[in-house]
Amino acid sequence: MTRMYTALTDHHQNLSLDEIFSPVLGKLKSVENLLPTWSEDTSPQLKRMARKIISKQGKLIRPGILLLITGHLGYKGKKDIKAAAAIEAIHLASLIHDDIIDGSTTRRGKKTALQIFGPDFSLLLGDFFFIRSLAHSLAIDREKIPSLLTSVTQKMIEGEIEELTHAYDYDLSQAKYFKIIEKKTACLFQATCELACRLGRATKKENEALKKYGLNLGLVFQVVDDLLDLLGNPSETGKPGFLDLKEGRITLPIILILKKADGRTRASLINWLDEIKHSSARMNLRPLLRLLQESRALEQTHDLAKSLAQKAKQSALALKPTVYRQLLLDLVDFVLYRTK
Amino acid sequence: MTRMYTALTDHHQNLSLDEIFSPVLGKLKSVENLLPTWSEDTSPQLKRMARKIISKQGKLIRPGILLLITGHLGYKGKKDIKAAAAIEAIHLASLIHDDIIDGSTTRRGKKTALQIFGPDFSLLLGDFFFIRSLAHSLAIDREKIPSLLTSVTQKMIEGEIEELTHAYDYDLSQAKYFKIIEKKTACLFQATCELACRLGRATKKENEALKKYGLNLGLVFQVVDDLLDLLGNPSETGKPGFLDLKEGRITLPIILILKKADGRTRASLINWLDEIKHSSARMNLRPLLRLLQESRALEQTHDLAKSLAQKAKQSALALKPTVYRQLLLDLVDFVLYRTK
Repeated sequence: MTRMYTALTDHHQNLSLDEIFSPVLGKLKSVENLLPTWSEDTSPQLKRMARKIISKQGKLIRPGILLLITGHLGYKGKKDIKAAAAIEAIHLASLIHDDIIDGSTTRRGKKTALQIFGPDFSLLLGDFFFIRSLAHSLAIDREKIPSLLTSVTQKMIEGEIEELTHAYDYDLSQAKYFKIIEKKTACLFQATCELACRLGRATKKENEALKKYGLNLGLVFQVVDDLLDLLGNPSETGKPGFLDLKEGRITLPIILILKKADGRTRASLINWLDEIKHSSARMNLRPLLRLLQESRALEQTHDLAKSLAQKAKQSALALKPTVYRQLLLDLVDFVLYRTK
Repeated sequence: MTRMYTALTDHHQNLSLDEIFSPVLGKLKSVENLLPTWSEDTSPQLKRMARKIISKQGKLIRPGILLLITGHLGYKGKKDIKAAAAIEAIHLASLIHDDIIDGSTTRRGKKTALQIFGPDFSLLLGDFFFIRSLAHSLAIDREKIPSLLTSVTQKMIEGEIEELTHAYDYDLSQAKYFKIIEKKTACLFQATCELACRLGRATKKENEALKKYGLNLGLVFQVVDDLLDLLGNPSETGKPGFLDLKEGRITLPIILILKKADGRTRASLINWLDEIKHSSARMNLRPLLRLLQESRALEQTHDLAKSLAQKAKQSALALKPTVYRQLLLDLVDFVLYRTK
């Protein structure tokens, strides 16, 4: 963790993901074991590729959330494992396609599909995970779950397209930014909660509360991601820093700093941001970081994340008190104060 | 049409697609009108992109087949229009992703999505069409149609991956080639027929006959595509010639010629094929065409297409005689003798 980020997060101590997901670790393991079986009946090449990428699995946050909620709702079946795997497969597919778009060679400290298999195979592998997820969702519940998944996937694609459309758009407003990250990132968290509610036969009130919880948690997740791109330690985050800037993604700290800057500072900052894409070598990032500090854009960004986190917690507090509810609350802090 | 291809197809005269699809032209028009509405509720950018690509629609062969079959089965509803649009959307999605993989700038004589929007937007647009197709299939029939579509899409992806895996594989066998094109191309024709059977409540016997019809028609389609890549007139086919060779795709004529060639000819042919990918300029293709002619590999390829066409016709002849059955038979000849 960089010093600047530590200062920002106020040296906050939170539970580890293993602690948060402790009551569902058995089921999470089942999700982890289920995913590779989804490519078992395909061609040897596809099977190898799928297994290789699944083995590089990340934090399984979305499956964990789903299982905490079905736990909270007292769900007794096993369909939550399948549903969690379907959500994770959609997430995987979108990461694979995103990495192609960004030209990313590492993620979570490991080589991306793009880096291992090249763009052509990766494109098809992403397609495979999208389709497979939907195919398996049909086996869970034909009424609502498949349309929930197609609908969220479509929103994610829309979000990605809008983000690309606004690359290098230095006039991007904060409102538009939040609309984009809602589609790109937060909707999948929200859909994860909805799916869990559907399985666990949540009441309408529980469903509404958990949808809000998921949405706000997802927004926090993305805003913190923006901060980590600037301040995170690549050896912890597992991805190179300043990727957003290099891809022309105008993230929240940049929006805030651009809004505050006077004409001259703004012009020179835009100049600098325009240049970073062309510079293959390491650029001197100190001027940007100094500007960010002086303008307090980083603190402001983190404050916005905190207030979204507060909203997520308030929604969770509307649920009846259980050990799962407490862990959903702890998860908000984990996402807010995470360093990777 | 090139002289060589005319000679091969024996100056065959067949009905035009408009003639073949004449009893379903109204419904085909509805399919054409329905597709653009599927992006109506999305972001402006995505809507524009989707409309632009849909307006470049091709021959609508798959929707036409579906409608001829529902016509034959006496289906009276309107779900066949939705189902035909879903099939066409999957076809569109796979074309968009294929064009990214091949780096193709033109198709059907028009600019590809890749050329207009670049690889990043095209990738997402392809994802959008895949997901949208499945989302809409859920509205047709939740029992069987969505799983039919996810299953065929998965096979297409598998076929593409196997094809990529065997690029520049000069030992590719004819059997493996047919397995690949079955997945890559013929399965979607087969699924089109199955879907129509499902809607039109076909008997088991009709369903079996039409599945075979679709499969063999799809194989003919692909084998003729291979021939057109070598012999077609780019101004008619709407795509640059020799694209398969440039991408290292070992097509049926190449397999046949490699099988027959003596050691020295084989070695020099392989040398030549290896070189074509590096040559950005127009290569002298006469040596290859002369070799193909001398070896009679083109005639043999066309003979194989003819025998597959014969199988497709035999399957169709198992159906009760209707005007639609006759048109399904005429369609086989259209696909076999098409010049674009």
